[in-house]
Amino acid sequence: MKIITTITELQQNIRKDKQKGETIGFVPTMGFLHEGHQSLIKKARGDHAKVIVSIFVNPLQFGPNEDFESYPRDRDRDAAAAEEAGADYMFCPTVEEMYGSESVVKATAEKRTDVLCGKRRPGHFDGVVTVLTKLFNITTPDTVYFGKKDAQQVAIVDALVRDFNFPIKISAVDTVREEDGLAKSSRNVYLLKQEREEAKELYQGLLLAREAIERGERQPERIIKIIKEHIETTTSGEIDYIEIYQYPELTSLETLSGTILVALAVKFQKARLIDNLILSI
Amino acid sequence: MKIITTITELQQNIRKDKQKGETIGFVPTMGFLHEGHQSLIKKARGDHAKVIVSIFVNPLQFGPNEDFESYPRDRDRDAAAAEEAGADYMFCPTVEEMYGSESVVKATAEKRTDVLCGKRRPGHFDGVVTVLTKLFNITTPDTVYFGKKDAQQVAIVDALVRDFNFPIKISAVDTVREEDGLAKSSRNVYLLKQEREEAKELYQGLLLAREAIERGERQPERIIKIIKEHIETTTSGEIDYIEIYQYPELTSLETLSGTILVALAVKFQKARLIDNLILSI
Repeated sequence: MKIITTITELQQNIRKDKQKGETIGFVPTMGFLHEGHQSLIKKARGDHAKVIVSIFVNPLQFGPNEDFESYPRDRDRDAAAAEEAGADYMFCPTVEEMYGSESVVKATAEKRTDVLCGKRRPGHFDGVVTVLTKLFNITTPDTVYFGKKDAQQVAIVDALVRDFNFPIKISAVDTVREEDGLAKSSRNVYLLKQEREEAKELYQGLLLAREAIERGERQPERIIKIIKEHIETTTSGEIDYIEIYQYPELTSLETLSGTILVALAVKFQKARLIDNLILSI
Repeated sequence: MKIITTITELQQNIRKDKQKGETIGFVPTMGFLHEGHQSLIKKARGDHAKVIVSIFVNPLQFGPNEDFESYPRDRDRDAAAAEEAGADYMFCPTVEEMYGSESVVKATAEKRTDVLCGKRRPGHFDGVVTVLTKLFNITTPDTVYFGKKDAQQVAIVDALVRDFNFPIKISAVDTVREEDGLAKSSRNVYLLKQEREEAKELYQGLLLAREAIERGERQPERIIKIIKEHIETTTSGEIDYIEIYQYPELTSLETLSGTILVALAVKFQKARLIDNLILSI
């Protein structure tokens, strides 16, 4: 695996690969790779001749009071994890390399953003679509891989690729979980020991919701109530949101039908965790 | 020359061309082609194996009180002009084909837009960078061609390509003029006979400015005054602006130095004309 820090060097490598007729799978990440990321890399490995993993903590998608500075970073560990999963290139540019000159043009997401994390993190998805537009043009992949854990991100990337006509296929990969059901996340390292125990209950709450839907429940409020009561009684976390939307449009619904997203965010002392289920009714 | 109306068909053709190792020159236009556009097509013809011309009057870059509806359109004439100049593909999608689904993601130009035409046409350059982002992804050209007549557009496309990391070279081509110096423009057809006579004075005013600079004048206000007096005494048009900026940054300057843009816009009864000179001091 080659570790590359400049856009020019990555593009030179990609050009050579493409001249040989090789296809490219791309896994954009913010690093601190875990098995969730590795499952994306392995999927890309199976689909394409060359696999690029980018490691870039994108300042544009963090708000002023968010954890840009403290977001966990460990390039050596990332390199080992990316290589183990089968990446050919690890692209880890500096902020200077990505946003060197004062930028004039940005991408903005004007819909699908006023709910869930987007509502709580104004400007977050503008930062996401801007950095992805740049990374897509730098890496020119055939397929880009995202985890379903960030369901709103997948919905917005779906719109980005469609609206900007990127000739790229999106592969949305199932969330990888710890044995007790906790969704893998780089931020899990910030859970206190007791919180880590409790954190499994987020997924348990989602499973209770699924059971209720399977029993025939179609009222979003009642399903939200089931999850809320479960999390409140089993964890010390503060519920940030529990919401249900049509997917991927992220429009609200009075009665569940079609493809829906049941999503939640819970704040623990030093980590805010998200999780979700995407269900077909 | 193939006339193509769907994104899918154009992409299929481009894929085949690229598999043969052919490079692509792209000339985006709003149609009603004149010799200015043809000079871009001919330049692309000399540089690349395949030349794509797009004809698309982009609603996103017109304001509510602008001339989107009345903008001149003539596809048969355009096809003849594009073919004559050497285009391989004329891509003329409908608005539905380009913006079919309700769009979520857009591109915005946040600098270089608060002067010149951008100041008078709020949102105009957001529409320009959005449609170009789409067209660049659809056509995946090696080089894209623009006329220097739209100098602010060239400055913003320069930023678009840099900020979004498009792997595309920009070729800015000199303005093509009528015998009397009037810059070729699709909107010239809307000049009344008397106005058409007067319209040559816009360029004459710019030439007077250049002479003054060559004589050593370095004060922007004095140069603007020279142009203003000339246009006011020789035409019935209403001056929209006469401005001088650093180029391509479009920042203001107290004393001329480096590369500068001297630009003007004049309103006639049914046509607003623009012209400019880019000069190195």
